[in-house]
Formats: sequence, structure tokens, C-alpha cells
Amino acid sequence: MKPSDAIVRVTRGAITESIHRVHLAVVDTRGALLHRAGDPQFLTFARSTAKLIQALPVIESGAADHFGLTEAEIALCCASHNGEADHVSAAHSILGKLGYHSMHLQCGAHEPYHAQTAQAMRDRGEAPSTLHNNCSGKHSGMLALSAHLGASPEHYMSPEHPVQQLMLDAVSAMSGVPKEQMELGIDGCGVPVFGMTIDRLALAFARLGQPDELSSERANACQRIVNAVRKYPEYLAGNDRFDTQLIHVTQGRIIGKMGAEGIFALSVPDQALGFVLKVEDGNLRALYPAVIEALKQLALLTEDEVHQLAAFHTPTVHNWQGTEVGRILPDFSL
Amino acid sequence: MKPSDAIVRVTRGAITESIHRVHLAVVDTRGALLHRAGDPQFLTFARSTAKLIQALPVIESGAADHFGLTEAEIALCCASHNGEADHVSAAHSILGKLGYHSMHLQCGAHEPYHAQTAQAMRDRGEAPSTLHNNCSGKHSGMLALSAHLGASPEHYMSPEHPVQQLMLDAVSAMSGVPKEQMELGIDGCGVPVFGMTIDRLALAFARLGQPDELSSERANACQRIVNAVRKYPEYLAGNDRFDTQLIHVTQGRIIGKMGAEGIFALSVPDQALGFVLKVEDGNLRALYPAVIEALKQLALLTEDEVHQLAAFHTPTVHNWQGTEVGRILPDFSL
Repeated sequence: MKPSDAIVRVTRGAITESIHRVHLAVVDTRGALLHRAGDPQFLTFARSTAKLIQALPVIESGAADHFGLTEAEIALCCASHNGEADHVSAAHSILGKLGYHSMHLQCGAHEPYHAQTAQAMRDRGEAPSTLHNNCSGKHSGMLALSAHLGASPEHYMSPEHPVQQLMLDAVSAMSGVPKEQMELGIDGCGVPVFGMTIDRLALAFARLGQPDELSSERANACQRIVNAVRKYPEYLAGNDRFDTQLIHVTQGRIIGKMGAEGIFALSVPDQALGFVLKVEDGNLRALYPAVIEALKQLALLTEDEVHQLAAFHTPTVHNWQGTEVGRILPDFSL
Repeated sequence: MKPSDAIVRVTRGAITESIHRVHLAVVDTRGALLHRAGDPQFLTFARSTAKLIQALPVIESGAADHFGLTEAEIALCCASHNGEADHVSAAHSILGKLGYHSMHLQCGAHEPYHAQTAQAMRDRGEAPSTLHNNCSGKHSGMLALSAHLGASPEHYMSPEHPVQQLMLDAVSAMSGVPKEQMELGIDGCGVPVFGMTIDRLALAFARLGQPDELSSERANACQRIVNAVRKYPEYLAGNDRFDTQLIHVTQGRIIGKMGAEGIFALSVPDQALGFVLKVEDGNLRALYPAVIEALKQLALLTEDEVHQLAAFHTPTVHNWQGTEVGRILPDFSL
């Protein structure tokens, strides 16, 4: 372990049983690196953190206004939501405004992330639909953009479809990664995902929160997205979820989003900062402890806010009987 | 990344999205280090790999013979089983021989690991019992030992109980770690787990497979455990599980066992070798790819055997729609 390595320990009894390594980049709106841990140029995929950036063309195109999307529905377009009743209703509502229904969503179906909602559905013998997929808001936004462009909804997931091209344009412009250098993969929900170094993704989030140097059209779209997520953080994730709690606890001073494979991107608009943290091995259990610890050390969270987020900061490890057998403990100095 | 680092890549599209680091120790029956990767003295918990060693006092005490445990039942005592019908029956059978029932098991209940079995139970509205817990065989063996010692079954999970003391004695003697230096924690199922460096755990597995230098009583118990697991590998894990397949494919030439938090211990009796591999971050998805790759490079598996285990060696990563979006690829040279 090098001194510059940033880790999260998983303890059991008196010793560390497993170790997660993390990489961090904090940048300003010009992309200058202000703080780091591990490798701030770690190459990976933005995964669902990109959803806030992908929502830009949904607004800039006029689609959101044309179809009358509410702020809560715009927040849902940025979400990896819990599949709770309000999330399902909002996705259903967006589709209704387009004249579409759940079968037009090509994201696939999975059980709601929210354990009680999933259990209640099982108890009722109810199968999950595409609306319960955590990405149903993003896909509904893609369909809104597609419909507004007069494009066919059949192939909206294809990288060549105008929807995906506009989203690639937005992610490229915001991150400063030229389109031809952007690594593309396929996400869990079937659409393209964007591969870049974490400092470039942090730049996109710095600009999202402080867009004054962007065109007025883009700056307006950035502000509408930030405002929507600030006002409706429960639509960004849901009950018991860190992304929602972080906005609640900071009263919107910090706007952040998780992505699969242990990545978190956030914006601190007042300080014109973007921040991306990646767990090298992709494990979500180390993500929120490391994010909170880094925010604490950078004085971006107050002691009281850290205290309110304690269950995410140093979670306990339990056995099948519910006994505490260990903890997850961030261990690094920025 | 240092040249000596051993990693497993998780790819998506053309790039690596996440990285797992692994540590390996291969030792002979004197504990001499023959092969390594990463840190062969990485300190962690043996978790369920210790079950084969913990079964020793169940045999040595005479408990297994007194109660007439079958070879399949001895294999189940070493298992992290799938909770399939045969596993539940065998655990039930052991308890019946003691005059006990499922309520005497204090391991807690969880859904069977075997997905189809778990789904079928849900469809029937059937709640999992302690018999379905992957550790029910180990706990049944502990109860057999307790009953044979004339001890009360109430506190068999306590570190001070004679059952746990005899198991600590066995793990200490086999690994060469003095009892006072053994780190103890609490396992997922409530009983003590044994913390040691991976090279010491590898020594215990070298001796398990090649016990000629041990007392005749212990050597006999080692051979009975190896024979039971060789003959009934499906009781060690179950359908679709690597531990079972490894024994099948090698026709018992290699006997290995996984443990939680990404650890694998195996014995190659013919070569008097013990082998332990730990995924630093504890993620099971990297474990079998790394174990197979290491065994291949050490010529402990043939090309044909590696081919038969291909689905465990370089598994594909799928999205919700079932499309292949990436792979898990071991990447190291021993």
C-alpha cells in the first residue's frame, strides 16, 4: 500500500478482512485538479452518473416543455430510482404525455431496488414491469426526446439514433472529451455508456453546477436540472438512499448521483466544484463511506451533516442473526 | 500497479471498468512458500474454508462414528451448501441421529443459495428454515460433537464451549498459528472464525491432503474428510457451484472450498500442496476466475479441465436484457 493510496477497510472483530481502494478527482470549472486520491485519471465508465448530463438535450431540444414534463419528472429522468409507487407513477405519467406506455420502454424489467416495495409485490404475486426498472425515467426522457425529434421510438437505444447522438454530444461537450475519444459500452439497461477518466467526469459536474461559462441555452438547461433534483431529491433515488439523503441533509448545497460499479459524481454549485470518486473494484459498499469521508476532509460537509449521514459513513456489518460483526471504515487522508 | 500485482479485470466494451487485486500463497506440508502473487502473508479470515479443518474433531472425538454419520453427511459438515433438497435432508438426518431438530441449529435462516430452489419455495409461500442455511451441515456437526462430549447444546456457538475450543485447537495445529495468536471474529452464522495470514491457511490445506507427518489419529481423520468430499462433492456446495465442479472435473485430484469475502483454499494431495487465494476486496465474482487462472499457470489443471471450467474462468457480464456487455478476465503471470 503506497501512502497516496486511499482505502476503505472492511473489518471483522479486531482485524481488517477486506480492502477497497478508491480514486478521487476534484476539479474546478476549467478542469484544474484541486484534490486527488489514488489515480485521478482512472479510466472507467460514468454509468448512471451521466444521467444528469444526458437530461440536457431533453430540455434543450424543447421536448420537456413541449410535453409538459414536471420538475419531478425531470428529476426522474436523472434517476436510478427505487421503483417505489411515486417513481412508477412519474414514469407512467411521462409516457402518457407522449402517447406511449410501458411496452415502449426497452430497459428491461427488474424488481424494485426498494426492498419493502419488492417484497410487497412478491406477496401480491405481481411481476415487475419496465416501469420498476431503476432507469425507467431516463428511458422515458429518451422517448420524449425521440418523439419531439419525430424519430421512431423502436431504435432509441441504438448508438446511431439521434437521441443517443445528442446525448453523446452533451456528455462530450460537458466533459471536454472529444466524441472520437469517448469509450462507449453498453449499460445494464441497454443504452450506450460513456467511458472517460474520472477527472473529465468531474469537470462535467463542475460545469453542471456552475454553468456561467457555457452558452445561455445550456446554462439554463443545467440550472433546470440542478433545480429539479434539488427540489425533488426523492425522485433521484428514493427512501433510504444516499443520493436522496445527501441532498436533503445539505439542503441542496451538494447534488450527487451514484452509478453502478461504485462510482459517484457530485457538484457543489456554490464552490464551482466537480467531484468524482470511483471504487476501483466496483463495490457499492465502499462508495458512500469514501464519498462522505472525502467530503468531510475537504470541509464540504459540516460535522453535523456527517453525523446525520453516519449510517452511510461507517456502516456496520451484520451476520445472519443480525449481530454486529464488523464495520466498513474509510481510511485515508487527502 | 506494480508488476507483482495480480489482478482480475472487469471489462465493458473495449475498456476495463473495475479491477480486483488478488493475493496467493502456495505452500508445501512444511509451510515453505512455493508460489505467490501479491502478498502471500495477507492477513484475513479463513471463513468457510475452515470447515474442512473444523470437521476434524467431529471425527477424531468419535462423534461421527458414534452417531453413524454417513460420508455424505460428513461432506455436508464441510459445506457452504446450496440449500437444495438433498442438503436439507442430510442436515435433517444428522440432527435426527442426535435426537435434535432444526430448532437446535442457531445458524439463522436464509433463502437457499440455489436460485431455482429459492424461487420454488417463494412460489409455494414456504419460509426458509435453519436447515436451508448454507452452514447447517457445519452446525449439525458441531451439535454432534457437543452431544458426544455430553455438553449442553444451548451454547455451542460460544467461543468458550468445548466444541469451539476443540475446533480452535484443530485449526491452530493444522495452520501452525498458536492459539493465542489466532485472530477470532464472528462468522455470518454466529460461530467463531479464524483470522490468519493466507500462507498459514494454505499450510493447513497442504497437511489436510498429505497428512503423513501428523499423528495417525489426525491423519486418519484428514483422509476421511478428503474422501468424503471427493466422493460426495455435490454435498460440499451443490448444482452449478464451482467447488463441486472443481472436484468433479479433476476427479478429486483437487479438493477446494470457497469462503465468504472472496477466499478459496484447496489441497492437491498428490503433490502435497496447499493453495489459498484471497480477493483483496472480498468480491466473489473475481474469485473463481483467479483460482482457475492460477491453477492453470501452475499446471495443476490441464487445458481440458480449464476448458470444462470456462464458464467460471472468464465469465461474461450481462445487462438486464441478457446481452453480453463485458467479461471478467484474470490478468497476471505467476
